[in-house]
Amino acid sequence: MALEGSSRCVEKRRNIFNGLIQTELKKSSQYLIGMHSIAEAIHTGKEINKVFIKKGLQGQQFSELFKIIRQKNIPFQYVPSEKLNRINPGNQGIIAVLSLIEYKNLDEIVQRTFEKGDDPFIIVLDQITDVRNFGAISRTAECAGAHAIVIPSKGSVSITADAIKSSAGALNRIAICRVSDLVRTVQMLRERGLIAIAATEKTEKPYYSVDLTGPVALILGSEENGIHYNLLKIVDSMVKIPLLGSIESLNVSVAFGIIAFEIVRQRRNDR
Amino acid sequence: MALEGSSRCVEKRRNIFNGLIQTELKKSSQYLIGMHSIAEAIHTGKEINKVFIKKGLQGQQFSELFKIIRQKNIPFQYVPSEKLNRINPGNQGIIAVLSLIEYKNLDEIVQRTFEKGDDPFIIVLDQITDVRNFGAISRTAECAGAHAIVIPSKGSVSITADAIKSSAGALNRIAICRVSDLVRTVQMLRERGLIAIAATEKTEKPYYSVDLTGPVALILGSEENGIHYNLLKIVDSMVKIPLLGSIESLNVSVAFGIIAFEIVRQRRNDR
Repeated sequence: MALEGSSRCVEKRRNIFNGLIQTELKKSSQYLIGMHSIAEAIHTGKEINKVFIKKGLQGQQFSELFKIIRQKNIPFQYVPSEKLNRINPGNQGIIAVLSLIEYKNLDEIVQRTFEKGDDPFIIVLDQITDVRNFGAISRTAECAGAHAIVIPSKGSVSITADAIKSSAGALNRIAICRVSDLVRTVQMLRERGLIAIAATEKTEKPYYSVDLTGPVALILGSEENGIHYNLLKIVDSMVKIPLLGSIESLNVSVAFGIIAFEIVRQRRNDR
Repeated sequence: MALEGSSRCVEKRRNIFNGLIQTELKKSSQYLIGMHSIAEAIHTGKEINKVFIKKGLQGQQFSELFKIIRQKNIPFQYVPSEKLNRINPGNQGIIAVLSLIEYKNLDEIVQRTFEKGDDPFIIVLDQITDVRNFGAISRTAECAGAHAIVIPSKGSVSITADAIKSSAGALNRIAICRVSDLVRTVQMLRERGLIAIAATEKTEKPYYSVDLTGPVALILGSEENGIHYNLLKIVDSMVKIPLLGSIESLNVSVAFGIIAFEIVRQRRNDR
């Protein structure tokens, strides 16, 4: 019984790993194998969604590449070697899945927006992992004239072909910025003069009672977990959407649309 | 070649019919066979999603039942007898698929809302056939305190288990009214004092420039076809959501959320 149980367990773990790589590959028809070509790709600015590394991989070449991977905040994951071999037997213990979109630099976007005389409208997504919600938020964000969507490099959604489809193509038109630390990023945005506003149920203040006409960073969390405490601690305002029915919450992409177009309404004021 | 072509054509038509009945049955674990039990069910107020009738079915009993089906605006469809036989060989040329929800009477809801001293907020959905959009609209409608959603008995979405799931259960909490003629219904709502507002791109007037504090019937169309011309002709106002990006349109459930919560904002005014 014990043996059967543990072999089942291994089998299950295998399926999970296989599933993960397959999911990453489904996002992109392109992947790179071998340390040299991956290092070269990073060097020339190619966008990489995720790097899969053979468990226990060592050596100086790998150490140098791994340092760059961590410096560049590229998501990575250790997997058993046989999983890499199924994708491509010629791998040298490492496979990099190329990204479907080109990530942008948040600092530059904020600066450029200010230089144009516009008020930046930046969206920060915390723990949003649902591909369809992410796609829908991107579509609405583009329609509302937002300047960028910020996602963390860990624990966030992957930008899959499904996400791009759900976004009605918006993911190719709006800037997506991947950052290693959302707290530090929101602090940076506040230092640049943006007010950080968290959409959360942990307040009684309605979203429309806040002045949203200036530079704004709007933070949204997942439907399940909301926004992380460390982020909530540093925002300027928490706002909620007053719910009049008996259902506990709105879909996050609808909630985002409501607040995003309140920003549009306040800014245009063309009543 | 001609023979082969036409037999393929018949096969295709068969699959379509089978698919349709299967889809209807998937919505509900319950269906009724036989004219007597269907007539009885209608009589006792059971909600019926759709009736499938054998092509060429005749006779006095059927004529009487058919008259009631049409009077009650129950959707119906003619299908070949073998399709009915596959579902249940004991059918008498007619199968009724029971509804997952209980439809409500719009007149009564409007009257009751006025009697309570509230301003009715009624949503009219024209040509919205996507189950997920319909579910999402229902969820947001419940959160925004809307009093009812009106759908036409023909050419509208079916309230499937998927729709209920997409609505996060809201379809069991908000009143759904099925009507035979949307134009007549909107006219009735206007006679009762509601202003009919169409969300459409065929105007330059932003949605927030209209007074939405009184009784409102908000009309939405499908993303593909918009709102039918006959409906647009009789509304009090056409409003649009100003889009600031390069994408042509918002998702209909997000667009609905934006306007629905503008109604909430204007009505609460708790700035």
